[in-house]
Amino acid sequence: MRQLLRTIIASNALIGLVTTPVAIAQPRQATPYDTADPMIGTGGEGHTFPGAVAPFGMVQLSPDTDTTCQIRKCYGHAAGYRYTDPTIQGFSHTHFSGAGHSDLGDFLVMPVSGDDVQLEPGSSDDPGSGYRSRFSHSTEVATPGYYAVTLSDYDVRAEMTAGTRVGVHRYTFPADKAAHLVFDLRTSMYNYPGKVLWSTVRMRDDHTLTGCRQTRGWAPDRILCFAMRFSQPLTGHAFVDTEKNIAYKGFQGPGRGTDTVAYRQGRALVARLDFGKLAKPLEVKVAISSVDEAGALNNLASEPGDFDTIRAKTKAQWQKALGVIDIDAPQATRTNLYTALYHALIAPSVAGDADGRYRGPDNQVHRTKGYTFRSTFSLWDTFRAEQPLLTLIQPEDVNADIIRSLLVSQQDSPFGILPVWQFQGRETWTMIGYHAVPIIADAYLKGIKGFDADEALRAMVASATYGPYGDLKDYMKMGYVPIDKEPEAASKTVEYAYDDWTIARMAQAMGRQDIAQRFYKRAGYWRNTFDPKTGFVRAKKSDGQFRTPFDPTAINYGSDYTEGNAWQYSWFVPQDQTALFKAMGGDKAVVAKLDQMFDYDNSKLDYSHAEDIAGLIGQYIHGNEPSHHVAYLYDYAGAPWKTQGRLKQIVDTQYKPTPDGLSGNDDLGQMSAWLIFTSLGFYPVTPGSLQYVIGRPFVNRAAMHLPNGKTFTVIADHMDGAHPYVGSVTLNGKPLNRSYITHREIMDGGTLHFVMQAQPNKTWATSPASRPYSMSTTRSQ
Amino acid sequence: MRQLLRTIIASNALIGLVTTPVAIAQPRQATPYDTADPMIGTGGEGHTFPGAVAPFGMVQLSPDTDTTCQIRKCYGHAAGYRYTDPTIQGFSHTHFSGAGHSDLGDFLVMPVSGDDVQLEPGSSDDPGSGYRSRFSHSTEVATPGYYAVTLSDYDVRAEMTAGTRVGVHRYTFPADKAAHLVFDLRTSMYNYPGKVLWSTVRMRDDHTLTGCRQTRGWAPDRILCFAMRFSQPLTGHAFVDTEKNIAYKGFQGPGRGTDTVAYRQGRALVARLDFGKLAKPLEVKVAISSVDEAGALNNLASEPGDFDTIRAKTKAQWQKALGVIDIDAPQATRTNLYTALYHALIAPSVAGDADGRYRGPDNQVHRTKGYTFRSTFSLWDTFRAEQPLLTLIQPEDVNADIIRSLLVSQQDSPFGILPVWQFQGRETWTMIGYHAVPIIADAYLKGIKGFDADEALRAMVASATYGPYGDLKDYMKMGYVPIDKEPEAASKTVEYAYDDWTIARMAQAMGRQDIAQRFYKRAGYWRNTFDPKTGFVRAKKSDGQFRTPFDPTAINYGSDYTEGNAWQYSWFVPQDQTALFKAMGGDKAVVAKLDQMFDYDNSKLDYSHAEDIAGLIGQYIHGNEPSHHVAYLYDYAGAPWKTQGRLKQIVDTQYKPTPDGLSGNDDLGQMSAWLIFTSLGFYPVTPGSLQYVIGRPFVNRAAMHLPNGKTFTVIADHMDGAHPYVGSVTLNGKPLNRSYITHREIMDGGTLHFVMQAQPNKTWATSPASRPYSMSTTRSQ
Repeated sequence: MRQLLRTIIASNALIGLVTTPVAIAQPRQATPYDTADPMIGTGGEGHTFPGAVAPFGMVQLSPDTDTTCQIRKCYGHAAGYRYTDPTIQGFSHTHFSGAGHSDLGDFLVMPVSGDDVQLEPGSSDDPGSGYRSRFSHSTEVATPGYYAVTLSDYDVRAEMTAGTRVGVHRYTFPADKAAHLVFDLRTSMYNYPGKVLWSTVRMRDDHTLTGCRQTRGWAPDRILCFAMRFSQPLTGHAFVDTEKNIAYKGFQGPGRGTDTVAYRQGRALVARLDFGKLAKPLEVKVAISSVDEAGALNNLASEPGDFDTIRAKTKAQWQKALGVIDIDAPQATRTNLYTALYHALIAPSVAGDADGRYRGPDNQVHRTKGYTFRSTFSLWDTFRAEQPLLTLIQPEDVNADIIRSLLVSQQDSPFGILPVWQFQGRETWTMIGYHAVPIIADAYLKGIKGFDADEALRAMVASATYGPYGDLKDYMKMGYVPIDKEPEAASKTVEYAYDDWTIARMAQAMGRQDIAQRFYKRAGYWRNTFDPKTGFVRAKKSDGQFRTPFDPTAINYGSDYTEGNAWQYSWFVPQDQTALFKAMGGDKAVVAKLDQMFDYDNSKLDYSHAEDIAGLIGQYIHGNEPSHHVAYLYDYAGAPWKTQGRLKQIVDTQYKPTPDGLSGNDDLGQMSAWLIFTSLGFYPVTPGSLQYVIGRPFVNRAAMHLPNGKTFTVIADHMDGAHPYVGSVTLNGKPLNRSYITHREIMDGGTLHFVMQAQPNKTWATSPASRPYSMSTTRSQ
Repeated sequence: MRQLLRTIIASNALIGLVTTPVAIAQPRQATPYDTADPMIGTGGEGHTFPGAVAPFGMVQLSPDTDTTCQIRKCYGHAAGYRYTDPTIQGFSHTHFSGAGHSDLGDFLVMPVSGDDVQLEPGSSDDPGSGYRSRFSHSTEVATPGYYAVTLSDYDVRAEMTAGTRVGVHRYTFPADKAAHLVFDLRTSMYNYPGKVLWSTVRMRDDHTLTGCRQTRGWAPDRILCFAMRFSQPLTGHAFVDTEKNIAYKGFQGPGRGTDTVAYRQGRALVARLDFGKLAKPLEVKVAISSVDEAGALNNLASEPGDFDTIRAKTKAQWQKALGVIDIDAPQATRTNLYTALYHALIAPSVAGDADGRYRGPDNQVHRTKGYTFRSTFSLWDTFRAEQPLLTLIQPEDVNADIIRSLLVSQQDSPFGILPVWQFQGRETWTMIGYHAVPIIADAYLKGIKGFDADEALRAMVASATYGPYGDLKDYMKMGYVPIDKEPEAASKTVEYAYDDWTIARMAQAMGRQDIAQRFYKRAGYWRNTFDPKTGFVRAKKSDGQFRTPFDPTAINYGSDYTEGNAWQYSWFVPQDQTALFKAMGGDKAVVAKLDQMFDYDNSKLDYSHAEDIAGLIGQYIHGNEPSHHVAYLYDYAGAPWKTQGRLKQIVDTQYKPTPDGLSGNDDLGQMSAWLIFTSLGFYPVTPGSLQYVIGRPFVNRAAMHLPNGKTFTVIADHMDGAHPYVGSVTLNGKPLNRSYITHREIMDGGTLHFVMQAQPNKTWATSPASRPYSMSTTRSQ
């Protein structure tokens, strides 16, 4: 039904509806839970997965259409499922939601009916060649916490649900055929020879398997264990080691020829699990643990109940979590927004076991006291809007858990620094900066309790002063990262400077003036990499000269910038846009330059060699994060109507309620959080500033239920495609003549009321005093 | 000094002295501690190591002369050190004492002085090519728990000692040269590409490193962690990853170029550790743990003190442990015997951490309650004499620990069976049979307390009935292991049958007649693989026919026998030698066949393709275990004087107080335990029978201090080379006219008095009633 609805929406090309009056009669609006569509983003560049997950769940149980790609060719299969693929290879228990790089796909299970059970996946070009099966989208159901599909090669109905640390499969086999599962410990996202370092599978009894797998993937060394319980007994099994060319095999353990043994270990294991002919559906309940098999077994026991029980519990969790914002908006917008909210609530995932144990960045086992260890920190993305969104819509203990998990990760880190891009407690060193720092500072300044501020500040300073990380030693010495010492130096310099500013802000609030002064100074280091002549942030060499040749449109790996070019990175001084704009020549020049960016003729540019460069509007690249705040920058130049116009341009073209509806990787909720904030009419351009910059709303009305029990409501009059501009704004009935609101104003509850109009209002919030925070002008705020 | 003494002994060719009157004036006899010589067995086929170890210590800190061999060429370097090698590569922390196959050699440390620090070991042919150093035996000192050598390439004096879970290095560097250590995580015994699955090294502070290494070696997957503390601070370091051709490297972590980082992980790590110029010796204290880094750190803390403290403590432990038998014998005999006693007290090693945690056969972490987990179970060897020896000379809690560790290993085993060849809790599946079973039965029958007998019996039956292990399913069905289903079937059948008998014995003693009857029946299955026509134990096919062609002298891997041939295996019915001898044609035929075995002209046989076939006397192969009881079998045929003569022949030729003095692998104490028992005049031919078969003594006097506080003394009159035969025997002054004594007779304390004579006494202990236990004649004993 959901699938049918999506198909209708897509076929009617309702894309333009977002800001177009809805002509058709609106029935009673569907609930948030019924509106969110996990299928959105599973095609195109979204990299989301359609399968079952609980809010922040450790398990993401989802179909993988193909895991046979080799590392450099796997970009499109980062989440395992690709909407355009013709076959499903199986269902695995871990997936990233919208990551660019990838891994996971642990413990793939595939139901097979009949007597011919193949143990290799085969090719999607030739489905009969392996255990994979064809399927039709018409048989799929995807709702938060539930996924179903019919596997046509086996006539098996496959259903998935997930709790916090468990996933539950339910397979309805044809009654007249033998039921089997293929359990493949070799597969994962982003494969290459040697990725599996070791794996084990053990039959504990005829209802239970356990095991572990250690992989060398995105995280250099990662262990994950499982406990798998069947609702009906195994009648037979084979644990097969398919590794070839083993230099040294050691001695023969139990089992020879066709012997059935209770245990197998090796680097290429696959199991055939037999259940005979089944009159009832087979349920397979699987818990995972980064610690050990006992942890997985305990996680399994900690969430009792069958498929329907877990499904109902998770549904209730999603209903509550998605109900945090009541949205009145056109149907496509509501679908986009509740789907965005769904995607925003998947990570950071629970990573610690029910007994408090977790595996840290040192690959050792630790135990939390009184909180849940969380991981999947895509911090370069999520510090921008995803984490600020969670602060507003999730209970304080979830936000405190996130901070505590960051801090304990720093304590466990062999380098003594905060996470960069971490999952399951393991560091990948992906992307740049130390953006755990703005997240912690922002949380502290917003009053999140539950962590020790002194300990936090120590961790932040330690991360910002660890010389071997991203050439911080030269940054500290020279005031910028020299490009001849460190790649992507321009991006690093500006991002470090922003992160430093957040340390200064927090230190100042804590009365630690020494630290504040030190880091306020570093917050100005962006100047050292800004070239006044060209007006761009550029990479500088150790000798103080900018590197040449300089092409502001070039995007290359290991270049002067990180996944971008001078166009995107030259705007990244969120701590002091005013100073940047002064350096750029003042408001008029800045507005012209911003216009030039959005209106840039990119028809002759080819960025197909670079991942994650998608969603282009000129040189504005919505599919990747460096651009995310840029449309809001007109506000800082006194031209908020330009922000409003650009936001319409972006929302109209970058989000659709279809599988290929996300223009770029969702990046663990950041793309989605951008849409949610933007649709509400404001955006956290500068986490740590305690301000949200006002754009324009895309909802008729939205009521956000805050964790403190209060409600903040956004109302927009004349919200339709013909009225794209903000005419006036009131906050709690009083005129608001500035282009930002404060965190306190939101947390106090109240109503932000927009009146939209057809023409730009070129007088609202244009004066310097009405503009958002900049360090050089509003430092004491 | 010790080295000098050994050299003198060797150069004077005192080999024959063992049973020759000592002409030179005997000074006051050296203490047992001063007599034991760890250098014995480090050449030839002994495979012992000369380094430092505490009794049953987890750490065996010893020099490795070469670890660069590849798997199939490493036999001679099983213990890392080979006496004839010209260089030392470094000092590593784990070694087997006398194993045939090998592994270990974990965490190699090599001191280097000067500015040129190489990170590859180089070749022993060209010492300057790497970090290895030349050395001279004249600079070596090896005593129990202490080893020292001068590394001439670096002018460094290297000393080693070890506690239970720690090893301590002490390096005296030349004061005018920079001191470094090379710390190599790539090396081990028996190398091959891909052996290291993962490793980490972490600097915790300038005095402390920790890390772990996971290897795929003899144990398919084994993790070992370390904690290393320096007495003087690191002044610099480099952690280098030398892996080449990595399919996927992931993202760059902290550190680039010459950066010094606190952590490195990978598959080929080596570290350079700098200390500057040192005025004092550098001490390096290292603890290991199979659990995790915290376990290693805790083990380090649990044994406080510096080099001299640990050395003194371990010396006291050895003095006590070696003092358990007071031996009066010729000097070479005393040296051989105290060295044998030393070697007998190295394994089974402590494998659990100080906090009780250990890693089990399931590769998961468990915790003991109230006892120490022990491992390094070379059970096919040690069930024969090593374990029975420990029962007599070690405290009951050590023996109980061994049984408890076997039982908990069965509970942790994914297969639910007892260990076969286990070290550090990890199973290797080496050799055949289920010889934990006789060890447990023997301990139970000897009254060892501290374990649950019902639990033990369950574990034993589980092991003996697990079909997939060594084709037990066919053994149970057909009464023998069929050679067309399973290699080495002849050896397996006879060994299973003996193991089964020990289950029956224990079950009977527990009043479990059902189990006793079942396994007494199986104890007779040796008959199903005995060929009356040829008089040999032979491999039989599923069709009931013996496999042809049959060559009783052939030794091949995967043949009808395990590391042996029909000559050695046809004598293995220790539970019922009388029945075997009847099947062989009676006493006279048996004596003739035994004589034929010892006197066999082997000059035309070449067994150089087979490992561990050494120490040949005809077809008697003392270097490997299947022959170990054979000389005693004349007693069962009423010809004890023949046993006496053969024992002299063996002792005279198979043990010398020189580095190449062991004729075969010491096999974790079994070769040594044989010598100790034999020298005392009796041997446990049939563990589980509660009897020791009398041979002849090789000591003038020996007093064994039993764990119950009593003393059992052996006295031999006229003990010299001219009086090789037993004339008469008294026990506690009363004539003993049987060729065995009982365990109770020993444990009650007392004196076994031999009078030796020049000619055989062909009337003593010859009657059937005076012969040792056989199931078919003395079942009720």
